[in-house]
Amino acid sequence: MAGTNHQRVMPKSEAVSAGGELPSIILIDPQLGENIGMVARAMLNCGLTDLRLVRPRDGWPNPQAVGPASGAEIVLENIRVFKTTCDAIADLNLVFATTARDRDMIKEIVTPEIAAREIRAVGSQNCGILFGREAKGMKNEDIVLANKIVIAPLNPGFTSLNLSQAVLLLAYEWYKLGDVAPCPELRMKDTRPANNDEMVMLFEHLERELDNHGFLRVKEKRPVMVQNIRNVFQRANMTEQEVRTFRGVIKSLAQFPRKIED
Amino acid sequence: MAGTNHQRVMPKSEAVSAGGELPSIILIDPQLGENIGMVARAMLNCGLTDLRLVRPRDGWPNPQAVGPASGAEIVLENIRVFKTTCDAIADLNLVFATTARDRDMIKEIVTPEIAAREIRAVGSQNCGILFGREAKGMKNEDIVLANKIVIAPLNPGFTSLNLSQAVLLLAYEWYKLGDVAPCPELRMKDTRPANNDEMVMLFEHLERELDNHGFLRVKEKRPVMVQNIRNVFQRANMTEQEVRTFRGVIKSLAQFPRKIED
Repeated sequence: MAGTNHQRVMPKSEAVSAGGELPSIILIDPQLGENIGMVARAMLNCGLTDLRLVRPRDGWPNPQAVGPASGAEIVLENIRVFKTTCDAIADLNLVFATTARDRDMIKEIVTPEIAAREIRAVGSQNCGILFGREAKGMKNEDIVLANKIVIAPLNPGFTSLNLSQAVLLLAYEWYKLGDVAPCPELRMKDTRPANNDEMVMLFEHLERELDNHGFLRVKEKRPVMVQNIRNVFQRANMTEQEVRTFRGVIKSLAQFPRKIED
Repeated sequence: MAGTNHQRVMPKSEAVSAGGELPSIILIDPQLGENIGMVARAMLNCGLTDLRLVRPRDGWPNPQAVGPASGAEIVLENIRVFKTTCDAIADLNLVFATTARDRDMIKEIVTPEIAAREIRAVGSQNCGILFGREAKGMKNEDIVLANKIVIAPLNPGFTSLNLSQAVLLLAYEWYKLGDVAPCPELRMKDTRPANNDEMVMLFEHLERELDNHGFLRVKEKRPVMVQNIRNVFQRANMTEQEVRTFRGVIKSLAQFPRKIED
C-alpha cells in the first residue's frame, strides 16, 4: 500500500533529459551505504532519480552513501524506504527482476537492452527494476513479483556484477534509447496497466478461494503452486479492467452453481 | 573460481608481449587501489584481462585492489605498469581516449557502442581504451595519442562516471557484440508450450463453468467477455503444465466449497 499516493519528484536540475516519467530503481536488502551512494551516482548519470530501498541493513539515511554518490544528492534526498518489496512496487505495473543466473521459474528472460526497450515502449511510466542484495542476489519470493527477468550477457565464468554496475547497465541502456520512438506494445483502449497492488489483491482473492475449496491443501506443494499460478498472470501484463474481470470470474466460480442458487 | 579456466583468458606469455585479441584497458594516473580492483572486476565480467597502469599513485601491487576485484585475480596478476602513456600503448594500433566532455581537439568522437564496433571490426587485435585519473579525466597530451575520442551519451548535467563504471560501459558494449548466444526466452523446465488445442479446451472448460454460474448470462456482452478472458491467457504464453494447473483451479473453484462438501 505504501507509495500509492507517491508523486514522482522530478529533479529541478535541467540535468535530466527525459521528459515525463522515469523508471524506478528498487534495491532489496542493500547492505553497504557506499553501494547505495554509487547506485545513486550511476542513476543520475543516466537521468534517473527515483530510488527505493527495501529494508536497508544499516537504515536510512546512511552517511556512508554521501561520498560515493559524488554529488548525486537529488537522488539520495528522494530515497524512500519500504518494509516489503510488495510495498515498494505497489504503484508500478511493469517490473523487472535482475538476476545473474537462471532461475527455476517460468518467466520471460530479457537482456538489459530489451528491458530498456520495453520500458520505453510504455512511456517509462510506472516501471521499476528490482536488484537483490550484494553477493546473494534476488530471492525467488521477490522474483515472482516481477513481470520479467533481466539477465545481462556477461562472461559466463564471472557474472557477478557489483550492485552499482548492474544498475548502471540497465540505466544506461534505458538512457541510450532516449530519442527512439516507442514501438507499439499493448493497446490499452480505455484502461491502463494493472499496478502491483491490484495484481496482489487478485492473487490473494484467488488463493483464498482455492484454500476454501481445498485446492491448495497439500502444504509442501502450496508455495510452488501459488508461484506457478501467479507467474501466469504476471506474464500476461494485465490491464486494470482485466483484473476486475478476473475478480468477477473468481467470485462467480467460487459461488454455488447458479442452477442451485436460483 | 576467478574464471581461470575460462577460454577467453589469454595465455600470460602472449599478454605480456603484446596486445592480443582482446582490447586492452589503460588507466592513466589512477589514484585509488579500490578503483583498480573494481576496474578488474568489471573487465572480467566482460571477458577482458589485459589491464595496464600508467604511474599508479600508490604503486603496484596494491592490496587495496584485492577486495573490490571480488575474485578477478587473473586480471590483477596480469597488470603491467608503465612510466608513460606512450609506453603503455606502444604495441597498440587502434586507441580510444575516453572523456566526459568535448575537447578542443580535431578528432573523431564516437559513442562506446561505435567504439566497440570499430574494435570488433579489426578483430579486436591490438586495440586499447585509455581512461584518465579519477575526477580529473584525461589530459590533452594523452588524448592526442589516441586515434579517436569516446564520449558516452549521459545526463548532460551529471556526466562524471566512476572510473570502473566508465570501463564497464566500454567493456560491456564490446562484449555484447561478441555474444552470439540467443537470449533464452521462456524457461520451460520439464514442460513444453501449450498447443492451441489445449488452450481451447482450457477456454471451453472455463466458459462452461462461467455459464453454469451465470457469469456470462448477458447475451450481448458474452462475446467480448469471452474474448477478453481468452486474451489474458493467450498473452501469458502458457505451458502445458500450467494449462493443467488452471484446469484444476477451475474444477476446484467450480465445485461446492470444501467445508460444505465435507
